[in-house]
Amino acid sequence: MHARPEAWILSIGNELLVGRIVNTNASWLARRLTFMGFNVSRIITIPDSIDDIVLEVRRGLGKVRVIITTGGLGPTHDDVTLEGIAKALNKNLILNSEAYEMIKEFYNRRNMPLTRERIKMAYMPEGARALRNPIGSAPGCIIEVDSTIIVSLPGVPREMEAIFEEEVKSILEIIAPKISIVECSLKTRGIPESSIAPFLEHIAKSHSNVYVKSHPLGFELDKPILELRLLVSATSEDTAKGIARSIMEDIIREVLKLGGSTSSEYCV
Amino acid sequence: MHARPEAWILSIGNELLVGRIVNTNASWLARRLTFMGFNVSRIITIPDSIDDIVLEVRRGLGKVRVIITTGGLGPTHDDVTLEGIAKALNKNLILNSEAYEMIKEFYNRRNMPLTRERIKMAYMPEGARALRNPIGSAPGCIIEVDSTIIVSLPGVPREMEAIFEEEVKSILEIIAPKISIVECSLKTRGIPESSIAPFLEHIAKSHSNVYVKSHPLGFELDKPILELRLLVSATSEDTAKGIARSIMEDIIREVLKLGGSTSSEYCV
Repeated sequence: MHARPEAWILSIGNELLVGRIVNTNASWLARRLTFMGFNVSRIITIPDSIDDIVLEVRRGLGKVRVIITTGGLGPTHDDVTLEGIAKALNKNLILNSEAYEMIKEFYNRRNMPLTRERIKMAYMPEGARALRNPIGSAPGCIIEVDSTIIVSLPGVPREMEAIFEEEVKSILEIIAPKISIVECSLKTRGIPESSIAPFLEHIAKSHSNVYVKSHPLGFELDKPILELRLLVSATSEDTAKGIARSIMEDIIREVLKLGGSTSSEYCV
Repeated sequence: MHARPEAWILSIGNELLVGRIVNTNASWLARRLTFMGFNVSRIITIPDSIDDIVLEVRRGLGKVRVIITTGGLGPTHDDVTLEGIAKALNKNLILNSEAYEMIKEFYNRRNMPLTRERIKMAYMPEGARALRNPIGSAPGCIIEVDSTIIVSLPGVPREMEAIFEEEVKSILEIIAPKISIVECSLKTRGIPESSIAPFLEHIAKSHSNVYVKSHPLGFELDKPILELRLLVSATSEDTAKGIARSIMEDIIREVLKLGGSTSSEYCV
């Protein structure tokens, strides 16, 4: 694949580590970032613990271009994401006036008082910008240090997605590489993964901007079903599509040659 | 919570990092390990890259009691999990005779030849034991070094779960702490998270073996809906259940006092 800026996703929350919740936020973000041209090289789930946040943020700082955190922005005692990020960056956690106004407006509109727990959500690392949450009460937060942009989003999926779409996307587009990504998928029946493996290895080795992978989906009357996936990056969408189409045709020819059949072919 | 042996889940596979697949394996394993008494302190998703596997395995080695990896055991060129683990442990990757027999039997039964790609799945770090895969072709692998047990399972969920249930569970039960875990859940309507926060903080601070968390689920006629979750560990199931029941009653009383209502109450 093209040299792409690295991105990490830091999922913060004990509920993920006890297996209570499936981390759909991470896959949603990973997909959006991938198609924007970023190389998501880590998804790390850590507890609601300041020490763990400090450790992982410092690991990525100055090394990866973007770190997106989810979770831990709310009003409860274990929502410590921004405190952890401030500490990782050796910055003070201060009352952010933009965030304070957003929170005040949110609760005023609902005739609810500004308690200590609600004002807590307005505390952000010094130098951070608040990101408007169009749905919930906790604003997002963005700060850049040592060429790493750290974006913090709430854990509630609807709120996380809304802030990303309305606030974060346009900021990341500025630093995203000018490449297009095309993804293709194909189902095959009747070929074991180990039979198509040499051909997929050949494709991977002969195209540097192509990523190819097979996923065993199961068996049907003892015949294996595979999903083959292709990710192609190129400087224009037309080029990426052309390369993808040509490789897909090669794969289909090989599958038929090996005695298998193909279905559910598509590119996006 | 009680002092519990730490466990990490290492999810290996680019398909997770491009957001193609939601990491249900990690949440399945996290839940199983949590209820066995382990403290899952990290879920880390990394690419199919030997360097990344070496880095993360070495980070946990001698520090956490159990590392469970998923993915990267198959026959394709990018299935490099066991090569990465061998390198992390400074061990040779050798043909494991148990694994070789399992793979030979799998393909013999299907009248398929043993190709290079299929035999590849029998290469394991020196000193490792193969774990029978009752469904698919790739055996699992287990090895203990520096008081860390590293278990490698395939990425296909059905195969991962089957090997865990039939082979891994009984091994981990030996080192699991003799504690019982009870989980309770409760839905509340009409109270914002920030209103119940002080009471939940009070519960968390007054019970050392209790973990409590609120999850905003959304709004209904502009009234917030929360899920409150409780995880209690104790030396016996009866004790854990007793503590959980008593805390649940306290929470319900507080919710009613704050003008909210409760539903969908259960403990497991």
